[in-house]
Formats: sequence, C-alpha cells, structure tokens
Amino acid sequence: MSTNTKERIVDAGATLFRRQGYSATGVKQIVTEAEAPFSSLYHFFPQGKDELAAEIIRSSGQMFQQLVEFVFDSSPDILTGVQNCFAGAAETLRQTDYADACPIATVALEVASTNEPLRKATADVFESWIKSATERFVSAGVPESTARELAIGLIGALEGAFLLSRAARSTEPMDVAGAAAVATVQAALTRSA
Amino acid sequence: MSTNTKERIVDAGATLFRRQGYSATGVKQIVTEAEAPFSSLYHFFPQGKDELAAEIIRSSGQMFQQLVEFVFDSSPDILTGVQNCFAGAAETLRQTDYADACPIATVALEVASTNEPLRKATADVFESWIKSATERFVSAGVPESTARELAIGLIGALEGAFLLSRAARSTEPMDVAGAAAVATVQAALTRSA
Repeated sequence: MSTNTKERIVDAGATLFRRQGYSATGVKQIVTEAEAPFSSLYHFFPQGKDELAAEIIRSSGQMFQQLVEFVFDSSPDILTGVQNCFAGAAETLRQTDYADACPIATVALEVASTNEPLRKATADVFESWIKSATERFVSAGVPESTARELAIGLIGALEGAFLLSRAARSTEPMDVAGAAAVATVQAALTRSA
Repeated sequence: MSTNTKERIVDAGATLFRRQGYSATGVKQIVTEAEAPFSSLYHFFPQGKDELAAEIIRSSGQMFQQLVEFVFDSSPDILTGVQNCFAGAAETLRQTDYADACPIATVALEVASTNEPLRKATADVFESWIKSATERFVSAGVPESTARELAIGLIGALEGAFLLSRAARSTEPMDVAGAAAVATVQAALTRSA
C-alpha cells in the first residue's frame, strides 16, 4: 500500500484528534475519513490505535513547530514574531469556527494519567517546542535560564488561550495573551540589552 | 433515592472526567465508582450522560472557584494570594501524581467543537472564574478593563501550566507560570497605585 495512504490516515487522525480528542475517535472513523481500506491501518500500524496516535502526536507536533518557526522566520524581529504567532492563532480560531487550535492539547490531557507511552509522546513534543523557542530567545540575546522560562511561559499562555478561546468561542483570551506575551518578551529583551 | 447517592454519582463522575476526560468515561464506570445502582443515574439525570456531564462541569467548576477564593481570602494580600494559588496547584499536581489539575479543561477541549450544550457549560464556568478574579483585582485598585485582562491572562496561564506540567510530570511549567503571574500582578498594582 502506498505511503500516500499512510499519510492520509495520519492526516485524518490528526484532524479528528485535534477537534474531538483521542477517546472519541475510533479507528473506523479515521480510515473512513482517510478514504482508506480498514486493513491499511493495521498494515501501517500493526499495534493499532495507540501506535497511530503516537505517530499523529509526533508528526502534528512537528508540523505545528515548523509553522511557528516559519512565522518567526518571516517576521522582521522576534517581538513581531511573537505578536504574529498569537495573531495567527486568533485568525485560525476564527476561520475554523474555533475548531483548530493546538494539535495535541486535547489528547495530552486525555492521556496524561491513563496512557504512559502517549503521555511521553506529548511531553516530547512540548519539550521540543520549548527548546526551539528557548534557542530563539537566546539568539536574541536573552540569558539561557530566562530564555527557557520565557519559552515555557509563552507556550503555556498560548495553550491556555486556546482552551479559553475555544470554550468561549471568542478570541478575547488569545488577544489578551498575545498582548501580554509581547509585553513580557519586550521587557526581557530590554533587561538583556 | 437519597441526595447522597446523587452526590456520589456527581463526585465520581467529576473525578473520572478530570483524570481521563469525557469520552473515555462511561456511565457504567461512573455508577460503579459511585457504588450506586445503575438505575439511579437515570433517576437523577433522565437525559443520561450529557445531563450528568453538564451538572459535573457546573458543580466542579464552582468548587474550584470556591477553593481559589478561599486561598485568596486566607492570604494577607492579593499578590500573596496569586503566589499561593500557583504554589497550591503545583503541590496538588505533585501529591496526586499529576492527575488532579483543572476539573473541566479536558472535557472543555473534548466538547468545544462537538457538543454545544456542554461547550456552553464550560464557557459559563470560565467566565464565572474570570468575573470573580476581575472583581478581586478591581477591589485591589486595578482599573476594570486591566483587571479583566489580568484575570484572563492568569487563568489562561494556570490552564496552560496544568497542561504542560501534567504532560511533563514536572511542576516546572507551574512554577514558571506562578513567578510570571506574580510579576505581572505586581506591575499592574504598581501602575494603579
């Protein structure tokens, strides 16, 4: 079976996990959405749903990181990059009727106390995001320990704003988080200058 | 059937929802954990799982708010209150092996795009928390619009830190969020003085 089929399965699973979570998503729904034969799922993922879920967590986590890095790389400076990330998140929420937010947050909360391999997969993704953001702040002149705190604080603020914005069907929490993030980063850059 | 049975059902459901989410929790597991007869669930909640879920969201949201208000009321000032809230959240994460965090976050993400009545119930809880925190900041002398932004930012930061801490099985994100929250509130109080 083609790699294309595997990609369609992972993409369909990623969309369903992001929008409705891990437990609500059955393998049958995933192959149906992927327009793939049922057997193909076990062909590519012999251990079934959990193996597929780990792959989805890692690949969608990596894609999200690449998207954020692209936003930063396309911005004239790191402060505008932070602003653009939160503004982009708000725009995506509006455009997708508050469905598309963090690709792994729902699954991460569902599995945190119930599925150790998947909990570990989500932890690895978050740590990769934290490392990426930390390096960026270090490159901008922020001392390393402060840079890591900034990264954790910003990713946490983004995640919290995704949750509150989706629940309220309003970008107010994302707008507020974005303004606070810009102010925090600006202060850290000023202190480091 | 006694109110006690109803309370046991709501309590058991709240624990399961908090730890494993909405979709993974069946009504059978709830009545088993509650040591209640199966029929009692439909006696108290004729519409079944969704009606119970709405009750759980509202009651556990209210309990969490009362807990936070108690922490603030027991603290000598609002800044210490903020510090104690984040420190208490970190302590609870450690004591419960990273299981007990926000009572409604997992469910809120699961239902945001799939179950409008439950989405609304989670939105109402978050708005009630935001209003309560806003009033507290206003009482401390912060102008109303700034107070609402502070409240949204702090609740978002707490939620994001719960997610990152549960995934990483580390209180680092909660500790970082707490320190940032204290600094943010301190700056707002200084500006308002």
